[in-house]
Amino acid sequence: DSSLKVFTLNSNPQLAEEIASHIGTTLGKCAVSRFSDGEIQINIEESIRGCDVYVVQSTCSPVNEHLMELLIMIDALKRASAKSINIVMPYYGYARQDRKARSREPIAAKLVADLLETAGSDRVITLDLHAPQIQGFFDSPIDHLQGVPILSDYFEAKNLEDIIIMSPDHGGVTRARKMADRLKAPIGIIDKRRPRPNVAEVMNIVGNIEGKTAILIDDIIDTAGTITLAANALIENGAKEVYACCTHPVLSGPAMQRINDSKIKELVVTNSIPLPDDKRIDKITPLSVAPLIGEAIVRVHELQSVSILFD
Amino acid sequence: DSSLKVFTLNSNPQLAEEIASHIGTTLGKCAVSRFSDGEIQINIEESIRGCDVYVVQSTCSPVNEHLMELLIMIDALKRASAKSINIVMPYYGYARQDRKARSREPIAAKLVADLLETAGSDRVITLDLHAPQIQGFFDSPIDHLQGVPILSDYFEAKNLEDIIIMSPDHGGVTRARKMADRLKAPIGIIDKRRPRPNVAEVMNIVGNIEGKTAILIDDIIDTAGTITLAANALIENGAKEVYACCTHPVLSGPAMQRINDSKIKELVVTNSIPLPDDKRIDKITPLSVAPLIGEAIVRVHELQSVSILFD
Ligand SMILES: Nc1ncnc2c1ncn2[C@@H]1O[C@H](COP(=O)(O)O)[C@@H](O)[C@H]1O
Ligand SMILES: Nc1ncnc2c1ncn2[C@@H]1O[C@H](COP(=O)(O)O)[C@@H](O)[C@H]1O
Repeated sequence: DSSLKVFTLNSNPQLAEEIASHIGTTLGKCAVSRFSDGEIQINIEESIRGCDVYVVQSTCSPVNEHLMELLIMIDALKRASAKSINIVMPYYGYARQDRKARSREPIAAKLVADLLETAGSDRVITLDLHAPQIQGFFDSPIDHLQGVPILSDYFEAKNLEDIIIMSPDHGGVTRARKMADRLKAPIGIIDKRRPRPNVAEVMNIVGNIEGKTAILIDDIIDTAGTITLAANALIENGAKEVYACCTHPVLSGPAMQRINDSKIKELVVTNSIPLPDDKRIDKITPLSVAPLIGEAIVRVHELQSVSILFD
Repeated sequence: DSSLKVFTLNSNPQLAEEIASHIGTTLGKCAVSRFSDGEIQINIEESIRGCDVYVVQSTCSPVNEHLMELLIMIDALKRASAKSINIVMPYYGYARQDRKARSREPIAAKLVADLLETAGSDRVITLDLHAPQIQGFFDSPIDHLQGVPILSDYFEAKNLEDIIIMSPDHGGVTRARKMADRLKAPIGIIDKRRPRPNVAEVMNIVGNIEGKTAILIDDIIDTAGTITLAANALIENGAKEVYACCTHPVLSGPAMQRINDSKIKELVVTNSIPLPDDKRIDKITPLSVAPLIGEAIVRVHELQSVSILFD
């Protein structure tokens, strides 16, 4: 359909390519570069007048660069008379600033929603928001996709025996439960407790892990402190082996080193964020969300002619 | 007055200190840092409930970082019940993207205005906008200060003889004219022309510069190509010596090298943007806009008790 165009910015061009090819199109021509002083320069190199435009951009690191690229692109598309501007943001940066936990804190996740709508976004397609409440920060429609089926299918295909799905903290139990339902496995929780103030946290493992294959699941792995401590505690307490998985591999700071040094056998992630150019990624398996997102785009558009690809 | 608070972000803390001291106060306590993944973390460390808050931030390089710091700070101030949020933005980044010069270009300067107002800005105080039309991009009040008096006063105090004020291009003639009026000097223009396509530009100097001291004036010096070529052309065509001045020393890429290698005797700028940590800044004289901005803040607030400082 000539009225659908997919553009990529600089955060995740490879995922954008895959999405375009899944819906049977190619990426729109657009140059996103920098002036000498670091200001973003965008040249959209084909007409988009009257088109439904999809812009693929995860607001991963460098988050402020990627967010400003997106806002300026939306502005350019709006002024070039796009019919609709749809943001495909597999990773939603600033999602952890989703509430005022302390006095005088910003709620950056709401600010991002307001900035996108002010620039001219008509719809956002995103994946595993850190807090599903962020959907309510938008006045425009938001499609909230889930990574659990993709991660579960991968583990199902491995035919692991005697598994237990572990949440690395009590905040993630719902997610672990979803995966456990799909894999018909029990769940467990790592319940960190500080017995008294200024005393080190104790890893209290809830669930029977003795001799089992544990699969840790989280939404975001950032510095990888939580997940690697959890993995090591599981092994020390009798688990046979430990896998870990998450939707968004932020992997900042010491993350790669910690993962490599940990007892994690394999870390399974999605390509919502591209993996770093790092020699130490052998342990990490990325799964593509392109089919999931491609299908969502097609459904949003009710493009029957293309959607038969997925039947 | 206890209801006025000045905060700084990371672009220009020294100017912010000077502004605060000019209005007889100190900077509000606030930590602006980064999480491990590069997301901005802001902690406002004192109550600002009911206060008129002034936030000093130039959106100079790294422009996207500085702009996002500002937007997140505004969000935090708004949620912390500031009475008014006033943005002191001596340098307005993206000001050169002020119109659609070609098809499908963004108008980033308008986007920035919309983003500031969406976040919660009530007023902007700024200096020498690249295009004064940008004032119209705001629905809220904007105070537009001018650098020409500060630059002119500096040259007046030097008692240079037989001067001519030169605009480096025809777009800057109005600015050159303002300076010439203050210094009671004639003006000239460097009128670049390309005689035929694909033939090098010719520097056509309009005005009598023979034996004179030329002062080039521009609003922004970015890569310093225009200004250094102009200076050298002036010397080659008989000027005795060449000074240059501008409000906003962007000085990106090859700028420092070009200025050092050029025939410019001295480059006079303001501290709207801090100078780079660079050993080659001997030729550059920064003048402070803190008194000008401090007075504007005081006037905005009609704080008679403080404004006597300026009488
Ligand atoms: N980019 C970030 N990196 C690390 N921590 C963050 C980040 N953004 C927010 N936070 C903190 O993470 C906590 C929220 O995470 P959670 O409790 O899992 O929802 C809050 O204490 C935030 O201050
Ligand atoms: N940050 C920047 N660095 C260099 N050139 C820019 C920048 N932003 C915009 N421009 C270009 O500068 C021109 C506008 O400058 P002017 O004609 O002086 O108003 C346009 O051609 C813009 O594409």
